[in-house]
Amino acid sequence: MTDGVSIRLGRLFDRTSNRSFIVAFDHGMSLPLDPALGNPVRLLERIAAGNPDGILLNKGMLAQAGHIFARRGAPVPVLRADWTPLDAAMKQEQGETHRVVATPSEALALGAGAVCTFLIGRPRAEGMYYDNVEALAGYLEGAHRAGLPVIVECTLWGLRNENQKDPALLAQVCRTAAELGADAVKTEYVGDRRAEEKIIACVGDIPVLTLGGAKGDDDAVARAAGEAIGSGARGLIFGRNVWQADDIDSRLATFARITHSGAPSERIES
Amino acid sequence: MTDGVSIRLGRLFDRTSNRSFIVAFDHGMSLPLDPALGNPVRLLERIAAGNPDGILLNKGMLAQAGHIFARRGAPVPVLRADWTPLDAAMKQEQGETHRVVATPSEALALGAGAVCTFLIGRPRAEGMYYDNVEALAGYLEGAHRAGLPVIVECTLWGLRNENQKDPALLAQVCRTAAELGADAVKTEYVGDRRAEEKIIACVGDIPVLTLGGAKGDDDAVARAAGEAIGSGARGLIFGRNVWQADDIDSRLATFARITHSGAPSERIES
Amino acid sequence: MTDGVSIRLGRLFDRTSNRSFIVAFDHGMSLPLDPALGNPVRLLERIAAGNPDGILLNKGMLAQAGHIFARRGAPVPVLRADWTPLDAAMKQEQGETHRVVATPSEALALGAGAVCTFLIGRPRAEGMYYDNVEALAGYLEGAHRAGLPVIVECTLWGLRNENQKDPALLAQVCRTAAELGADAVKTEYVGDRRAEEKIIACVGDIPVLTLGGAKGDDDAVARAAGEAIGSGARGLIFGRNVWQADDIDSRLATFARITHSGAPSERIES
Amino acid sequence: MTDGVSIRLGRLFDRTSNRSFIVAFDHGMSLPLDPALGNPVRLLERIAAGNPDGILLNKGMLAQAGHIFARRGAPVPVLRADWTPLDAAMKQEQGETHRVVATPSEALALGAGAVCTFLIGRPRAEGMYYDNVEALAGYLEGAHRAGLPVIVECTLWGLRNENQKDPALLAQVCRTAAELGADAVKTEYVGDRRAEEKIIACVGDIPVLTLGGAKGDDDAVARAAGEAIGSGARGLIFGRNVWQADDIDSRLATFARITHSGAPSERIES
Amino acid sequence: MTDGVSIRLGRLFDRTSNRSFIVAFDHGMSLPLDPALGNPVRLLERIAAGNPDGILLNKGMLAQAGHIFARRGAPVPVLRADWTPLDAAMKQEQGETHRVVATPSEALALGAGAVCTFLIGRPRAEGMYYDNVEALAGYLEGAHRAGLPVIVECTLWGLRNENQKDPALLAQVCRTAAELGADAVKTEYVGDRRAEEKIIACVGDIPVLTLGGAKGDDDAVARAAGEAIGSGARGLIFGRNVWQADDIDSRLATFARITHSGAPSERIES
Repeated sequence: MTDGVSIRLGRLFDRTSNRSFIVAFDHGMSLPLDPALGNPVRLLERIAAGNPDGILLNKGMLAQAGHIFARRGAPVPVLRADWTPLDAAMKQEQGETHRVVATPSEALALGAGAVCTFLIGRPRAEGMYYDNVEALAGYLEGAHRAGLPVIVECTLWGLRNENQKDPALLAQVCRTAAELGADAVKTEYVGDRRAEEKIIACVGDIPVLTLGGAKGDDDAVARAAGEAIGSGARGLIFGRNVWQADDIDSRLATFARITHSGAPSERIES
Repeated sequence: MTDGVSIRLGRLFDRTSNRSFIVAFDHGMSLPLDPALGNPVRLLERIAAGNPDGILLNKGMLAQAGHIFARRGAPVPVLRADWTPLDAAMKQEQGETHRVVATPSEALALGAGAVCTFLIGRPRAEGMYYDNVEALAGYLEGAHRAGLPVIVECTLWGLRNENQKDPALLAQVCRTAAELGADAVKTEYVGDRRAEEKIIACVGDIPVLTLGGAKGDDDAVARAAGEAIGSGARGLIFGRNVWQADDIDSRLATFARITHSGAPSERIES
Repeated sequence: MTDGVSIRLGRLFDRTSNRSFIVAFDHGMSLPLDPALGNPVRLLERIAAGNPDGILLNKGMLAQAGHIFARRGAPVPVLRADWTPLDAAMKQEQGETHRVVATPSEALALGAGAVCTFLIGRPRAEGMYYDNVEALAGYLEGAHRAGLPVIVECTLWGLRNENQKDPALLAQVCRTAAELGADAVKTEYVGDRRAEEKIIACVGDIPVLTLGGAKGDDDAVARAAGEAIGSGARGLIFGRNVWQADDIDSRLATFARITHSGAPSERIES
Repeated sequence: MTDGVSIRLGRLFDRTSNRSFIVAFDHGMSLPLDPALGNPVRLLERIAAGNPDGILLNKGMLAQAGHIFARRGAPVPVLRADWTPLDAAMKQEQGETHRVVATPSEALALGAGAVCTFLIGRPRAEGMYYDNVEALAGYLEGAHRAGLPVIVECTLWGLRNENQKDPALLAQVCRTAAELGADAVKTEYVGDRRAEEKIIACVGDIPVLTLGGAKGDDDAVARAAGEAIGSGARGLIFGRNVWQADDIDSRLATFARITHSGAPSERIES
Repeated sequence: MTDGVSIRLGRLFDRTSNRSFIVAFDHGMSLPLDPALGNPVRLLERIAAGNPDGILLNKGMLAQAGHIFARRGAPVPVLRADWTPLDAAMKQEQGETHRVVATPSEALALGAGAVCTFLIGRPRAEGMYYDNVEALAGYLEGAHRAGLPVIVECTLWGLRNENQKDPALLAQVCRTAAELGADAVKTEYVGDRRAEEKIIACVGDIPVLTLGGAKGDDDAVARAAGEAIGSGARGLIFGRNVWQADDIDSRLATFARITHSGAPSERIES
């Protein structure tokens, strides 16, 4: 028997490739704003026109830009359900933190097809990791009762980490999310296919999606994305490398191609 | 600002035509069973392969056949949330009734993208119509709080009706659903474009979808479907005329074509 | 100290005349539909253009036509929170009934500034009047906690009444509503100023608004409306005499003039 | 479909200009009191006589002065739902803080048509900004379920800020409010039209209202208000520059004129 | 992802044969008692010694005989969650009825691994079938939220039925249970493999278990049981043919052998 969690999770994945390309647009309250980007609803409309499988965004942007999701086959809205500052200056000034900002019932009421939450490894802030684990456990219970899949974004963004792509430490965080009941994991490509394969294996049978991070060189990012898919990642969740690019439409096409070309993934989740 | 009701309703409608072709497969507990149809999950898989915009079904079938909805661009599962016997023998024996069988939160937990409920005009059973109105009013409140659109199926299936397509009586039932807050109406094509246009006008700006009813002659049904779309219906919800046909795949293609060809509907809902 | 009940009730009344002209548009699920009236949202837009102080309507119409209320100084939306069939054929067939169809929190969530509920004297249906009183008492408690004023429409529409304007019986129903905590009463003009004054006096200091009922001769209706105001009614709630008229705009102007001309009412409520 | 959030938000905006002039009168527990101002209810009556589109005030004042709102077309009461000390001496002595003091259901029960809450950037108090974000996220969920629009006042009043009008930092706070689901933003005019336009663009399609702040030179304040409107602000929320003025009535007229003259704003919210 | 429903349901089925032999011992409040059978706890101990895959019993017997289930590999306790009189005399005297007697949380609290509920076709009692459907729909929602599988016993025991094994009518009841979300169906073997295969097909992919009914001739019952398994039944739930037999131990061995020998069933549920 299936339920809403597996149906909604499945709707993020392409019928043929069984992989997913999702655009991250949840930076607006976490990173310093680039005023050149202008009205975010206009930018979301442009991103939606590129037809990714999903768009990750905060609740206010989902409410303002709901029209881009309200047609058959439109991208799935994935709601960012929590918040952590990613701006180094803010973290320096105010410290690290992790806060839940949208409940599962609110996410469904807003029309979300999935949510994304953080699990941030090795923060300096006392108790923050433990609070994060506890909040995540509770969130997963609520979301699963409501029928909502949860993608857990597993990072080493805590201020104790010098290497945010340390494979062993990252695997630990990913496995913790899997142990708590994550329906999918979003994490780094650590730059080495063998190491990535081990991370992907360690979470069991749930899909692993690769995060994009800061804007990098177009070719280097595309090569890394291809390697991530090659190592078994079930898709990409890329933001700044899309909408900070000179040619947004072209980057949308490139990442979709990288995600969906090649042999289809064998379906294992659900 | 949009919410889940408008986003989920919109996902039933095609991006180009702005209309929707939905297959009704909610007969299994209402009509006498045709044993030749065999395993209903196999039949649902075949229907899904024809790629309608949505499939209307009961909660057990959604749970059993969830895999057909768990891919990007798959049809939207529309849950039948209530039950009324349509079998003349059962109504004769046990009387008419209307029962809610799935709550809004259950519908979302099962993965439904919308629900369909009945409003049945002119039953003989004492108080049944009034109870139906009251149950519908409460259901709409709960569904809207949860972010779930409700399609109200407005019929003259009550045993007092001799003419189940009486335009004036049908308009009254459709308008009642609209007054109670229906997000869309499913009703008969009364066989006359002018009369149908008046029914469609009387519900205000919400979409009206045409029901199929008993299996008819293929050409006559297709012609009526085309007239319904021509009179302003925003789509078809057809069941027996699909899966009781000799060539199911061909009927799926025919009704999709009738629904989506022609000038696109001007978007007015939401 | 004031609260939301008195503020919202007060916003229905004109600053100068201290009286209110409200258009009733809650007939769509109670009376036989006139197909010539077409799309009800278009009709509501026309009514709003005539600038009455409020418009009484059901919850689906409020959701569909919310834009007509979303400007400063627009009419106040008054939600019909319950339902009773007024169609003689339906009452004959299915019996009399009274059902609550919208909760106070739902009314506020939809944007209503007040609600209107029925108290129907002398029905034939067993227990109906008593159930009506009990439901009204509970509704008033909930509405007052939420900050929502309740206008109780007091009628002799029960099938036992031969004279629906019997002053003594009508006063009894109005007083019952007042005793239960009605914030205002909507009732008949009984055709005699002296008799009407007594009805108005018997509810204490809450405002009494005059209902319009079936479409009558334009001049006769206007004369009766003027007499009602002259006898102390704080306003009119007229429907069919507005939107079944040949010249809707002119009737809107006429009833507004009748309501607001003459010496202002001395403010006594709140 | 509309709901109470969009209807109530719309009622703050003038039918013709599509902009709003709101008087802020929520200083009584935040700023050192000027004893010369006397009885605040008398002052509120005088402000109401100037007919602004709304008045922002705390809950005790709304309860005491409810009569000024209880007439058709009267200003809309906008409830200040939280509190932060603005008095430098108090902040010095007791530290910075942000506290929610009125729930959404209480706001509706008191008759509020909207609420205003703070988001205060860069406080020195540890965790205060993060708690503020979390409280705001929860408040927005509750308010939207209840049908109440939330205007988020976005400031750089935190003690870390040397320049309270830093455009980049202010944009960050405004965008954060928009990402969390604010229905409107109230913020500074930063003194430069181009910079202001970027702030207004960065929140998407919700209205931005300009705050007034400390009493300034009449002409300079009027000129800045006009520039703010010229840069796309949908209105003014001015307090001290109204009721600390020598001629309150004249200032009310001036700010109303500045708000509503010129080409109407193209309606985009809802 | 699996949940408690699928894990607990799976534990009723043999690892090798993928079928289940369950002893029904829920007759004590439904059928006339045979005093020769003595203390039911002793009888349950003897049945458990025969090692069936599950034992179906009422809540008092589960509480009294819990020790027989409290070892690894012991039969699974299946709780009868409702009650209907099967005693013809009682039905004659008191009429037919169907009552829920154990909630899902109570079933889990008592240690049940699954529950069994009735759906009884064609009763004479007015509204009983409709109430049964509605109660079952609600029970399934509660049980599934709690993680408890529900076996629905589909019968034609209603007093309108002359032939309790009518294949078409029985299929209708079984399909209704499947449409409502039954995790397994318990029903009659209708005496004809072809007809039985159609019944089994019509419920989709959920397991069908064959009920035993009244004590019959040992050989005839064994032959019918074998035919039922041959037609695709996933197991037997037999009572009177076990514990009313002369040699209980031998019958337990016989039915277990019939259930588990032959080619294993291909597992398709979950």
